[in-house]
Amino acid sequence: MLCPASCLPLLRELAQWRCLLGWHRHNGVGSASTTVLKANTGRRQQQHQKPKRGSEVKDRTSRPVGCTKPLSGRQFSSSGCLLSLHHSEKPDHEDACVFRPYSCPCPGATCKWHGSLEAVMPHLTHAHKSITTLQGEDIVFLATDIDLPGAVDWVMMQSCFSHHFMLVLEKQEKYEGHQQFFAAVLLIGTRKQADSFAYRLELNGNRRRLTWEATPRSVHDGVAAAIVNSDCLVFDAAVAHLFADNGNLGINVTISAC
Amino acid sequence: MLCPASCLPLLRELAQWRCLLGWHRHNGVGSASTTVLKANTGRRQQQHQKPKRGSEVKDRTSRPVGCTKPLSGRQFSSSGCLLSLHHSEKPDHEDACVFRPYSCPCPGATCKWHGSLEAVMPHLTHAHKSITTLQGEDIVFLATDIDLPGAVDWVMMQSCFSHHFMLVLEKQEKYEGHQQFFAAVLLIGTRKQADSFAYRLELNGNRRRLTWEATPRSVHDGVAAAIVNSDCLVFDAAVAHLFADNGNLGINVTISAC
Repeated sequence: MLCPASCLPLLRELAQWRCLLGWHRHNGVGSASTTVLKANTGRRQQQHQKPKRGSEVKDRTSRPVGCTKPLSGRQFSSSGCLLSLHHSEKPDHEDACVFRPYSCPCPGATCKWHGSLEAVMPHLTHAHKSITTLQGEDIVFLATDIDLPGAVDWVMMQSCFSHHFMLVLEKQEKYEGHQQFFAAVLLIGTRKQADSFAYRLELNGNRRRLTWEATPRSVHDGVAAAIVNSDCLVFDAAVAHLFADNGNLGINVTISAC
Repeated sequence: MLCPASCLPLLRELAQWRCLLGWHRHNGVGSASTTVLKANTGRRQQQHQKPKRGSEVKDRTSRPVGCTKPLSGRQFSSSGCLLSLHHSEKPDHEDACVFRPYSCPCPGATCKWHGSLEAVMPHLTHAHKSITTLQGEDIVFLATDIDLPGAVDWVMMQSCFSHHFMLVLEKQEKYEGHQQFFAAVLLIGTRKQADSFAYRLELNGNRRRLTWEATPRSVHDGVAAAIVNSDCLVFDAAVAHLFADNGNLGINVTISAC
């Protein structure tokens, strides 16, 4: 399935979102009921700018700092929040408030969309058509061309248990010369909903298996925090090559309800 | 159990081999039949010398190069090898020959001992008394003080299936500012014997689990090659802290026969 013309603006915006191919799972990889799909590759615009430790902090300190006092009131009242809190209670509530606008969960921070939780999936469907969804609790997330240089994202959706999960594989070079892959699962839902699921990411190779099991992140939190804290499946390029086949890396993804 | 006086020469040699404490596994960690032990810590002498990429190659090129021709004959005839091979066949055979002297499998390359396969365990028992052995297919390898700076090794033995396995956890800083842990299992046996086993290393945390399953390395090959190629359980300091408890990291180790 070639990438439809309607996603060309997105292609320009994200530089190199790549096309998708539906492909039936080959024999010998996991269970027969598992479906395989080549995930789309999003090479981010900052791919030639190697991330430097502490650069964000430096940027911040170089900017003017305006001193503002916290205000009381309903930060997300326009989205439906009816609570009126003292300013000391606001930070905790704002962090957890289900009416807080959700950001677009696509990694790379190139999409500036915000909206309600209910609007996230329609946004992804309309603005990020290149991201394909697979149905089922047990699928294979096949990332192609893992040797592409620079910072690269692979993204796809998995639909099961009447929920949508975003699967993200991100390649970064946090340390010069040391490429690392980070894989995580986000629930398009609240933190509370996310807590009722578990996911397993599994790399299978020649008499080798690497497995990460955890609770999905809520789209509320995004994938960046998981990557910064290594609270996801983390592996380096050498490990990726132990499990890759001709530059393509298949990750078995299993979602389960707790 | 304090480190016996007889291992003081080893303590001096390895700078900071640490004492061992036997400790019954606490409730809530894995199965009741699993035994737990604090592993000994070997901080290597080169802990303050950060490894630099390519330094080994540079060292080699700066040294005088003597041109020597390959000789035919029995390289390990004194050890019992009866084969007489053409020089073109020698490299492959020497690599696989069961009569090739085995090096001491302790990581860090500070022990220069070589001997037959049968002599490896007696050597470990006599020269490396601080390394303790646990019996059973399913044990917990508890590495204490994982925050110790520099290059550090934790080593213990596991005995099951009438074989001895060496469990190694090594902390390195291959990339400046990026501490990584490498965990692997070695069989005190030949490659062929190693192929008939599998091992699983498992980190368990709060709704998180990281698992590596593979074939043990033979003591013939050592642990260094596995670490260089990331062909083992690899995780960074952030992941270690997700699973550590007060600076101590428990790794569930399970050996199985194929």
